[in-house]
Amino acid sequence: MDSINIAILGCGTVGGGVARIITEINDELDVRASQKVNLKKIVELAPKEAAKKYNLPLDLFCGNGDDLTIEEAGNYITEVIESDEIDLVVETIGGTSDFVYQLCLDVVKSGKHLVTANKALLAERGKAIFEAAEANNVTIGFEAAVCGAIPIVKTIKENFTGDKVISISGIMNGTSNYILSQMTDEGLEFAEALQLARENGYAEADPTLDINGGDAGHKIILLIKLAYGIDISMEELDMVGIEEISKEDIDFANEIDAKIKLICYAKKINGDIYATVRPMLVKNGNFLSGINGATNAVRVTNKYSGNHILVGKGAGSSETAMSIVSDIVLVGRYGSKIKTTAEAQERHFADAKHFVFPYIITFNTGDVPGTTGLITTAIGNQDINIDTVSHNRHQTGDVAVFSIATMPCTLEQIEKAIEQIKKEKPAVLLEDPKIMPILY
Amino acid sequence: MDSINIAILGCGTVGGGVARIITEINDELDVRASQKVNLKKIVELAPKEAAKKYNLPLDLFCGNGDDLTIEEAGNYITEVIESDEIDLVVETIGGTSDFVYQLCLDVVKSGKHLVTANKALLAERGKAIFEAAEANNVTIGFEAAVCGAIPIVKTIKENFTGDKVISISGIMNGTSNYILSQMTDEGLEFAEALQLARENGYAEADPTLDINGGDAGHKIILLIKLAYGIDISMEELDMVGIEEISKEDIDFANEIDAKIKLICYAKKINGDIYATVRPMLVKNGNFLSGINGATNAVRVTNKYSGNHILVGKGAGSSETAMSIVSDIVLVGRYGSKIKTTAEAQERHFADAKHFVFPYIITFNTGDVPGTTGLITTAIGNQDINIDTVSHNRHQTGDVAVFSIATMPCTLEQIEKAIEQIKKEKPAVLLEDPKIMPILY
Repeated sequence: MDSINIAILGCGTVGGGVARIITEINDELDVRASQKVNLKKIVELAPKEAAKKYNLPLDLFCGNGDDLTIEEAGNYITEVIESDEIDLVVETIGGTSDFVYQLCLDVVKSGKHLVTANKALLAERGKAIFEAAEANNVTIGFEAAVCGAIPIVKTIKENFTGDKVISISGIMNGTSNYILSQMTDEGLEFAEALQLARENGYAEADPTLDINGGDAGHKIILLIKLAYGIDISMEELDMVGIEEISKEDIDFANEIDAKIKLICYAKKINGDIYATVRPMLVKNGNFLSGINGATNAVRVTNKYSGNHILVGKGAGSSETAMSIVSDIVLVGRYGSKIKTTAEAQERHFADAKHFVFPYIITFNTGDVPGTTGLITTAIGNQDINIDTVSHNRHQTGDVAVFSIATMPCTLEQIEKAIEQIKKEKPAVLLEDPKIMPILY
Repeated sequence: MDSINIAILGCGTVGGGVARIITEINDELDVRASQKVNLKKIVELAPKEAAKKYNLPLDLFCGNGDDLTIEEAGNYITEVIESDEIDLVVETIGGTSDFVYQLCLDVVKSGKHLVTANKALLAERGKAIFEAAEANNVTIGFEAAVCGAIPIVKTIKENFTGDKVISISGIMNGTSNYILSQMTDEGLEFAEALQLARENGYAEADPTLDINGGDAGHKIILLIKLAYGIDISMEELDMVGIEEISKEDIDFANEIDAKIKLICYAKKINGDIYATVRPMLVKNGNFLSGINGATNAVRVTNKYSGNHILVGKGAGSSETAMSIVSDIVLVGRYGSKIKTTAEAQERHFADAKHFVFPYIITFNTGDVPGTTGLITTAIGNQDINIDTVSHNRHQTGDVAVFSIATMPCTLEQIEKAIEQIKKEKPAVLLEDPKIMPILY
């Protein structure tokens, strides 16, 4: 029986989970991979702790199980990359540092397959790594980089090969979803919910990327590459986080039979690709409104087969590790015949300002007669049809809050209308209106 | 560029959809399959009609586009099977006749890959066909045979290769689900809802397999083969249809915050495989309760990655065809390296009478004092813990209807309790109690 020899770099939450699964069900994996799945080496700074936590034999670790200095670990990593014995490297160190970037590049350039959960690296600096993999006829498995256990990468790459993806939307960040769920169910303010997420292990010490949309942005960038064959940078992506969502916004959502969710949305319209990551008002009839806590959910709409929904665990040690192990098995089974992403395509990545949604615009205005007329006229002047106008919500003192639900229009139209209002009567708007797409 | 040459046998709803997709997006498919996807021949009795309906060139059809007799079609099919030019045959004739069985056997024995939507054939007579495929080193693609567009076959076979399936459950028959949804939402009796399903094209002229659980049974048999590597026959499968579901049952479900759904359920417990197809009371907190109409939904629970849910279209021309085309593309990409099913395993297929669920037992009793005590005592004697007892529901005349919700127990325990009741006081039960598992 042939064998596929594996090295794991970094034996933390995810890498440790991978080593554990391979050790526990090695016989099954051999059969499924049509060859021996051989875990040869693990490089880890603190092997004893990892071996204990993930129930691994110490002799798997480079350095005889002794703790390694950064320099020693670096040397072992170089050894792995230069070794003819290793066929596939699992990178579970994480981060977008030059060190990890160069390491991944070296892995594929050395003719080894790469499997990784590193969404940030692939989304921000992946282009050269993907190209080097293609040039060296090796594959990059990154199922674990997008929505943890949900097999959305393979679903698009392998299962929908008889179709064309029209749109991809979903809840792809568990931390922000947990925070929003807590705000909704427990009536917490954002800061309180974030604190709770930290206490319960749903938020990292630095939760910036979870709450500013960055982590979700990484995922939609990878899915766009898979579905449409184009590379977009984080700078190009329209992205709004959940930091500005208040309890008042949540209450309003509740009033209009909706929930606020951080939604990733990419869509092909007339051949152009539109994408956004934003808090949206998801109507309760939409299944995404019911996805709570740290669960992830993705909807794919295809040309021939219509709507598909996938729901599963978006994070976790064994959940994310499972996705990595499934990538390893498929490399064993199919080798370089696996296509890492869609073929590169010459598609236009459109300005999200022209992405059409129905919107809710919430105005904080001074209590001035004529305000409603001024605002609705400005909106009408931009050819935006108004669906409903809700007045005087949560009125406090001299502030009148009201919300306009529009029929489908673009952000550009809305921004022009707001400009016009500011120009005609600067005193009317006490602050910039809050604009959120509605998902029915 | 190499090519994979395809023949389609039967150009009806599904075969026609396949031909249309291949024709419409042939260039994309070539890239994805890493070779030219060549639709060479279609055998169809009425080519002109099919060509028009699915927008196909007439010269694709055997016999120059003229209508064929059964005998002529048979000869062309033989030609296809004997041809060295054809690499893959799409069987979309359907049915479990000896003719179709022999045809599929001959296809794989001739060294050609087989792709089919024929769940009845594969579930009832598939064993020899699967074995012949393995012996001849060809693959059988049957994504389209299970839940139409939902890629559940590839999800289990390819995407979950790093995990172990604990259980599979779901709504896998759209017709019965449409009927139950209509009974729930519109207050219809079974016969009225069935009539409506017929009128709206959701039920075939002979809906037997849809309403008696047979079609759903075919699907769970194929999923059990995929997930656990064992063959079960329809005779071995515990299967109850929806014919006996009354409006009264639906009303009761509503009262206890549940919906009645025809559920397929397979589970590995201590290495043994349990399976059933039955109407169940699905609590409204369970996502399956919200799957309405002709939609299908499958939940897979894995050892490492937990719960996964897939929702999509369970039927339809282009939906089912997409699944076939995706199978074709993967055969082009990976050829015989694809594993058709799980490796055969020596597992015990357990008696569903020992499959543990919480149950609702509904009794129609004579209005006799002491009945409740008699029944609850008999149930307690079988070591069944009672969750709730609901009395005097829908009382009519001298009939007292009441329901007992049990804690998890087996059907065998319940049947023994009922036996005891019948033995002790035959007059108490006016008819056999209705027994339904509860899904929380």
